[in-house]
Amino acid sequence: MTRVVQKFGGSSVADAESIKRVARRVVNAKQKGDDVVVVISAMGDTTDELMDLANQVSPQPPPRELDMLLTAGERMSAALLAMAIHDLGATARSFTGSQAGVITTETHGNARIIDITPGRITSAIEEGDIVIVAGFQGVSQTTKDVTTLGRGASDTTAVALAAAVGADYCEIYSDVDGIFTADPRIVPGARRIPEISYEEMMEMAANGAKILHLRCVEYARRENVPVHVRSSFSDKPGTWVKDLNQIEGSSMEEAALISGVAHDRNEAKITVVAVPDQPGAAARIFESVSTADINVDMIVQNVSSVATGSTDISFTVPTTDGRKGVELLNRIREEVGFKEVLYNDQIGKVSVVGVGMRSHPGVTARFFTALGEAGINIEMISTSEIRISVVVDSEKVDDAVRAAHTAFGLDAEGEAVVYAGTGR
Amino acid sequence: MTRVVQKFGGSSVADAESIKRVARRVVNAKQKGDDVVVVISAMGDTTDELMDLANQVSPQPPPRELDMLLTAGERMSAALLAMAIHDLGATARSFTGSQAGVITTETHGNARIIDITPGRITSAIEEGDIVIVAGFQGVSQTTKDVTTLGRGASDTTAVALAAAVGADYCEIYSDVDGIFTADPRIVPGARRIPEISYEEMMEMAANGAKILHLRCVEYARRENVPVHVRSSFSDKPGTWVKDLNQIEGSSMEEAALISGVAHDRNEAKITVVAVPDQPGAAARIFESVSTADINVDMIVQNVSSVATGSTDISFTVPTTDGRKGVELLNRIREEVGFKEVLYNDQIGKVSVVGVGMRSHPGVTARFFTALGEAGINIEMISTSEIRISVVVDSEKVDDAVRAAHTAFGLDAEGEAVVYAGTGR
Repeated sequence: MTRVVQKFGGSSVADAESIKRVARRVVNAKQKGDDVVVVISAMGDTTDELMDLANQVSPQPPPRELDMLLTAGERMSAALLAMAIHDLGATARSFTGSQAGVITTETHGNARIIDITPGRITSAIEEGDIVIVAGFQGVSQTTKDVTTLGRGASDTTAVALAAAVGADYCEIYSDVDGIFTADPRIVPGARRIPEISYEEMMEMAANGAKILHLRCVEYARRENVPVHVRSSFSDKPGTWVKDLNQIEGSSMEEAALISGVAHDRNEAKITVVAVPDQPGAAARIFESVSTADINVDMIVQNVSSVATGSTDISFTVPTTDGRKGVELLNRIREEVGFKEVLYNDQIGKVSVVGVGMRSHPGVTARFFTALGEAGINIEMISTSEIRISVVVDSEKVDDAVRAAHTAFGLDAEGEAVVYAGTGR
Repeated sequence: MTRVVQKFGGSSVADAESIKRVARRVVNAKQKGDDVVVVISAMGDTTDELMDLANQVSPQPPPRELDMLLTAGERMSAALLAMAIHDLGATARSFTGSQAGVITTETHGNARIIDITPGRITSAIEEGDIVIVAGFQGVSQTTKDVTTLGRGASDTTAVALAAAVGADYCEIYSDVDGIFTADPRIVPGARRIPEISYEEMMEMAANGAKILHLRCVEYARRENVPVHVRSSFSDKPGTWVKDLNQIEGSSMEEAALISGVAHDRNEAKITVVAVPDQPGAAARIFESVSTADINVDMIVQNVSSVATGSTDISFTVPTTDGRKGVELLNRIREEVGFKEVLYNDQIGKVSVVGVGMRSHPGVTARFFTALGEAGINIEMISTSEIRISVVVDSEKVDDAVRAAHTAFGLDAEGEAVVYAGTGR
């Protein structure tokens, strides 16, 4: 018997009609003979509406109470889905995150799952019921207060539950057909990736692909839970995220150079000009930024000028933290002795990702040549074992994505490229 | 230090503005030095809106899931009130019924409180926080599922919590000023009752006074929790419901005949005609009705006719159960051998209530004389130690209430009557 966890996002349960549609899909899986656990988000705009209400009573609502309020959203959609399933003649039981045994840290609004104690859920499964779990929420191990898990966390709940109940795989339903070789709004010839490794998916997620949250993919890799990303509006297969060794044609010889092209417009570049070439200066700069929990991504340090005895340091941060970073740096300007801080949020990051590049030299050259031929200037570069990222002017991001997609043979035209396009 | 439980109903927390007003009242009590526990209902129409949503996905939603859905309502208002209190500089923590330790039976939609284990609440009080508890809900002792307590149950939650945390008294806030000697919409001269005994309040509640639910008053009497019924829109004192012996001027000599006049239009009369005068016939009739959990209130059996060897039996039931009662009775017509079943929902019940009548003969005579002088025909009569009720034509209910109110000196004109009007 197959055991599956299905996760449906807010757009899949926007109203009573869509809840009924989800119910039919869930009941179909059950009637096929599967054990089914469903993780559900709040309906459509519910979370935003609750936030509005909170802001009406308090400009800065305390995080514990905000979590009490927001968790009502998934509780409601979970109960409604259970009702719709009953109406189709099957039996279902809804559980809050706390009832489902989702144990978290105590950081309200951004808690992390520590453990899952799925006793009530496994009992319900064994009694033949479909189990519905409110996503995005849990209960603090220390305070016993209700917590929320932060952005993208319903996906993480689903993967964590799949691991905890020993599910064969986890299905993540949304309004897109799967993971694509590039954003189809930018590259019309982008194609669905049938299978992709956890590692590549992590690089894609960390570098701008919005479909799956990084934390969710990390969890899936750690627990080795295959994840099927697919559309709740069709029965078409989507993208399987799984262990590289379980992917057909994943041997070094067969693997394509690149699986996909990701992009991210939500970073800004900060440049600290004329930093004295002294030990500890760079450390002091990044220490200052990190006190505000600002996440530094790419870092570039120019070669020190012998003439001036100073250097420029550039790095990228999330746009939302940019202004704050500049403010913090200006406070230590005299202490460190640099000249000034420059700020530029008109940038974008373009990344090519693929396990194939491990064994194929020349990927960097092919990427940069394509960008050069398209007249695109590279401002910063960073690499990992299976990824190359560049920062370019924000107006050039679309061009850069298209140039890379074509250069690595991902475009839909060539039939021979389809297989390469799968990342294998 | 005084410890108080304050309960606010849905109309007191209809929107963000009214939640802020409640927050100010709560914080005032805290700043006065009191320990404050607040029990809160769902905002305005929330419960109705959630019911609508449930009916959109399922014509007969399973009760367990309906409870999961509806309990979101009080959870939201509790969290919002805690936020509004924080915004005023005080600290507050909200708790669901389950977190507050409200242990109930497992009857979804109509559970009863079995016990309260207020550990988390008393800890929060001792740490100096204002405690907010979501009313109307608890957790089943056996299934650990979330339950709702049925109509009027937020009041009962408040009284039960007051007993559990050893509160000095319980304040029930609503949009009326207290308990009146009669419904002011019918008797413009009706006056607020400053103090009333648990027993009288129970009779008032059981016979149509809507302000407090019967179960709540029963609980208050059993645990001897003084209840202050008052308006959330003013600071005026309301009505204290308390032990008779703690009410000033409550001795037999001083007590007024009647505390108040209650009425109820939600009953219907069923008459079973020509029931054979045989042992067991009446038993069979009431057994039949009770199988459907229909609550029989007043019963009148005519003197048996020697000529026919049969008798008529009349009784009242809630209007909502009337048609079903008639149907059940018609099924046993041939078996029992009665002639027919008559049904009349154009009736109303008018009751006079007062501990004074225990020691004063002549109350019945004065009541019936007043009704007779007003040209009102009495269809049925029932009495308790401190109450006399009559059933009259529904069109005569208002006249009967006014006649009784005047006959027992409750009208506002006579200053001397004010004291009598207090029920003492």
